[in-house]
Amino acid sequence: GRNITMPADRIDKQVAFLTEVDRLKSIERATTLGDGTRFENSAEHSWHVALYALILAEQARPDVEISRVVKMLLIHDLVEIDAGDAPIFGQYDAEKLANEEAKAARRIFGLLPADQASELLDLWNEFEAAATPDAQFAKSMDRFQPPNQNLASGGGSWKDYGVDLNRIEARVGAKIARGAPGLWAWLKPKIKRFMAEN
Amino acid sequence: GRNITMPADRIDKQVAFLTEVDRLKSIERATTLGDGTRFENSAEHSWHVALYALILAEQARPDVEISRVVKMLLIHDLVEIDAGDAPIFGQYDAEKLANEEAKAARRIFGLLPADQASELLDLWNEFEAAATPDAQFAKSMDRFQPPNQNLASGGGSWKDYGVDLNRIEARVGAKIARGAPGLWAWLKPKIKRFMAEN
Repeated sequence: GRNITMPADRIDKQVAFLTEVDRLKSIERATTLGDGTRFENSAEHSWHVALYALILAEQARPDVEISRVVKMLLIHDLVEIDAGDAPIFGQYDAEKLANEEAKAARRIFGLLPADQASELLDLWNEFEAAATPDAQFAKSMDRFQPPNQNLASGGGSWKDYGVDLNRIEARVGAKIARGAPGLWAWLKPKIKRFMAEN
Repeated sequence: GRNITMPADRIDKQVAFLTEVDRLKSIERATTLGDGTRFENSAEHSWHVALYALILAEQARPDVEISRVVKMLLIHDLVEIDAGDAPIFGQYDAEKLANEEAKAARRIFGLLPADQASELLDLWNEFEAAATPDAQFAKSMDRFQPPNQNLASGGGSWKDYGVDLNRIEARVGAKIARGAPGLWAWLKPKIKRFMAEN
């Protein structure tokens, strides 16, 4: 059991963190809603990919712990509050971005009580490194949702960035396939058909 | 281990569901972002309360399973795609709304393969009934986030609906306290002070 009579300043820190992360709702992504009416933001994207992980859990390797994947996906984009969203097909300085994101992670998770700050910083680093089965499945969900949004909206970020199937396969398909090969096998022919018809 | 070579029509149904629920991003709530610039939508709210549950897990009764609570919170508002959001302090016909939401749940979860449709319908019904410890903690998170948003934005839905501390205690505080008594004890004096100063 856990102690519910902990000092109020622990709750102060937790709520300060939860209030700060509200700003993720104002970080715009390159992907639109399925109906194309506006760009989606990183908070609603985080909700969506967490739900992807729950619904598509059976596509993960048997050693993947889905509740950890969901937790990872709920926090994976918080660094964008300080560092902004780097679109998948955009141009950016990878080293500079990695430094900015690491600094953002220390500041934002650092709002929490020390034990939770440390736990979430570790979880975010695990996601970024993409070396564990949990992180690889989380990455595959993060990459599988945008093409489905693009198929729904009639092209979305593919049109905006002028990409073809080869580029999608290199930047997106490879990461989907690493954590969830069955989903890339399902998706690739759909993108191919879309590209042929549009 | 799980089978990753299941029929493609199973993935078809799962992605059809995941594409349909994208519409939750267009359902507007009565609560604004912390900076007051716009109303929040039910998808980003769902992300936020799932994160509240993870961060505040130690406030739950020891028999609460947080991963089930998170799952519940990720799906708890999907019925609003068809039935709309009923603001906490708004006036509505509770029986009519319950019927509309039940119909929405059957349609939306019904897009999934039958086993998952049944599981999520059960989970949503458990949340609505608020009779289990998991559902009560999920409800307390769903009620604890909006007042924190209102405190951040300087009044938000409290001003729009002209409510006082007694009404907040009856509609919001009781549900927070049922699942997470320590959080209502922490929050109540903050609301009282806000009401005295505004």
